[in-house]
Amino acid sequence: MKIGLIGLGTVGQGVAEVLLEGSFPSISLINVCDIDRKKANIAPHIFTENPNDILDNPEIDVVVELIGGIEPAKTYIKTALSNGKDVVTANKLLLCSCWKEIMSCVKDNGRKIRFEASVGGGIPIISSINQALVANRISGIYGIINGTTNYILTKMFEEKRGFYEVLKDAQEKGFAEKDPSLDINGDDTLHKLFILSCLSFGKMVDIGSIYKEGISRIKGQDLLYADSLGYSIKLLGIAKENNGSLEIRVHPAMISKDHLLSSVSYNYNGIYIIGDLTGPLLFYGQGAGSLPTTSAVIADLLSLSSNEGFAIPDVKSVSCFLMDELKLRYYIRFMAIDKPGVLAMIFGVLAKNNISIESCIQKERGEVVPIIITTHETLEGNVIKAIEEIDKSPVIKEKTLTIRIEEI
Amino acid sequence: MKIGLIGLGTVGQGVAEVLLEGSFPSISLINVCDIDRKKANIAPHIFTENPNDILDNPEIDVVVELIGGIEPAKTYIKTALSNGKDVVTANKLLLCSCWKEIMSCVKDNGRKIRFEASVGGGIPIISSINQALVANRISGIYGIINGTTNYILTKMFEEKRGFYEVLKDAQEKGFAEKDPSLDINGDDTLHKLFILSCLSFGKMVDIGSIYKEGISRIKGQDLLYADSLGYSIKLLGIAKENNGSLEIRVHPAMISKDHLLSSVSYNYNGIYIIGDLTGPLLFYGQGAGSLPTTSAVIADLLSLSSNEGFAIPDVKSVSCFLMDELKLRYYIRFMAIDKPGVLAMIFGVLAKNNISIESCIQKERGEVVPIIITTHETLEGNVIKAIEEIDKSPVIKEKTLTIRIEEI
Repeated sequence: MKIGLIGLGTVGQGVAEVLLEGSFPSISLINVCDIDRKKANIAPHIFTENPNDILDNPEIDVVVELIGGIEPAKTYIKTALSNGKDVVTANKLLLCSCWKEIMSCVKDNGRKIRFEASVGGGIPIISSINQALVANRISGIYGIINGTTNYILTKMFEEKRGFYEVLKDAQEKGFAEKDPSLDINGDDTLHKLFILSCLSFGKMVDIGSIYKEGISRIKGQDLLYADSLGYSIKLLGIAKENNGSLEIRVHPAMISKDHLLSSVSYNYNGIYIIGDLTGPLLFYGQGAGSLPTTSAVIADLLSLSSNEGFAIPDVKSVSCFLMDELKLRYYIRFMAIDKPGVLAMIFGVLAKNNISIESCIQKERGEVVPIIITTHETLEGNVIKAIEEIDKSPVIKEKTLTIRIEEI
Repeated sequence: MKIGLIGLGTVGQGVAEVLLEGSFPSISLINVCDIDRKKANIAPHIFTENPNDILDNPEIDVVVELIGGIEPAKTYIKTALSNGKDVVTANKLLLCSCWKEIMSCVKDNGRKIRFEASVGGGIPIISSINQALVANRISGIYGIINGTTNYILTKMFEEKRGFYEVLKDAQEKGFAEKDPSLDINGDDTLHKLFILSCLSFGKMVDIGSIYKEGISRIKGQDLLYADSLGYSIKLLGIAKENNGSLEIRVHPAMISKDHLLSSVSYNYNGIYIIGDLTGPLLFYGQGAGSLPTTSAVIADLLSLSSNEGFAIPDVKSVSCFLMDELKLRYYIRFMAIDKPGVLAMIFGVLAKNNISIESCIQKERGEVVPIIITTHETLEGNVIKAIEEIDKSPVIKEKTLTIRIEEI
């Protein structure tokens, strides 16, 4: 099987190095391409600046696309497919933005596509869902699938430091990008969750309709309060079927410290997936980085070279479950002026909105203090309405933070 | 693809039911066989008592062997292979006892064999090692792969009850067999570990040369002392390459409570496997039971029906690493008469054998009391020698227990 590789970033370099070592005699890398001429030194004898040298080369059986982003990656992949080549990609943004377009192109050309590296780095989650779990009806996915945010939340808790301080440290250590916004704001988690959801449920929703919330509003004190209540806070991607629509959302969530996902720390990923036959499964490992991702790309190539008949399900568009209709318990942190009557006001508004209180902590003293409330199960719509009203009060000095408590 | 199924125990029934529902149009079950005529009611129209009706039926493409044990399963599998059929089996005892014989027979007949259900129930560990991780050199496997013993150890700790009491309870709840000896004594873990080790390292040792120790000597107090020292106790199967030989062993081990394996509780399995590219991975789920195992058997069938070219590595016989040469830290529980001079005697013998002490606890008072010692890293041979000598003393009232402390 002859391979052409486009994109020599850190993952592309890793893949090129492993393939050029020659440990996989069934696979031979015959062309690598990058727009940056300086990358030629990785493999000068097979380097080209022109992707068409790969896309139009009739000798090449499989194109590995590792440039990322939507264009020109999409054009390259579609050209490769129409030229009769199979494709391996790690491009989660492209897959979730153009799922149907790419999969139709695969089908129309009778080719194959593999994308194990798009979710969970070296964790074999795509092949597990598509092959090993294929006898199961999957009822839910709960994923910690962004290493950067998991690292930051872990360090904030362990070292009792603030978000921005830990972010800076993570950037210095290479666990966060220079521009970490896609990680921090939940986009990266959303892209991966979208792919897992297509494969697990054969269903998708308009990506713009998916609720998404990042971690930048979490404070060190939230992690400590969560801990004292028996929870850790993780940025979760959650997907499940709910009355024919798809409940899919990305946000920080409180998980019981007894749950295995709560022990997934630092830059690690953990994907908890529930099959009707298997029961719950957890897949854990490094979700990013050059070597783990290289492992996934090579596994995809070997799967193509062994002519594996891996079926990607047809994906149907359905409606997205409305967040207002969620029924969960909530952690709510108000930042309020420390004076008599504030609690009464808050409790009054909550009661008016049918929200019953499970616990309330107001330990600190000062001018503005956190008031921590956890609720019994209640409708999210009610919580939002109540907080909107409470936040209008002059005694509330900061936008109130809510964190969903997930019983997994 | 036409299937014949031999063995209608709980897993066989589960597989038959799922296949007869017709959710997998590419697979059709055309014969089921059991020696017990009463099982005919599961599928009377396709039932036979005679396995040759399946083995000699030229219509059948794949034989699913779910009777377990070595004979007649081995004969059935070899006959099926020579008759040009592929085989799916969950038979861990047969695979580890006759690995080379079975794999040669597969090769000689140009057939395929699948055995996802032999290890870890519904956890896709076999396909992950064989396909997804194939680009990796695996450096170690640490597995909690017996649900019965994990359930017992978890309950002993949680409910502060003794081994036999919890075992009885586990039997009543269906988490332990009527005759649980294969689980309790470590044999079941050993069989599964052997298979994982063949696949991960392409190496095997004489199965009789593998060190194996069960859990029946663990007392509730060991779990509590371990906890106070920051550890949990798990029955582990460990395999790694060590200077060309294979270090492979099964025994209770102390694992730091911070390690994810330590959170694998109740009847769940967890397999921690370290690849050079992926880094550490954990696979977690239900390692037994009718439905999870059915999930694995169906995945194997679908993998055969999609004509997947899954390569099973050639396995080389190598020597087994000698336990005497292990270098670990140890937890040692002496049961000694509570009188002056006992500790001095124990410490003296340990010192003579070059064993240095990390901690010592002797909290209880009474006639015979536990003395808990943890050592710094030391040679296992020295520990054994020292304990042999100490156990000869009349002040020691019970065979001394050692538990290896594993830094994973």
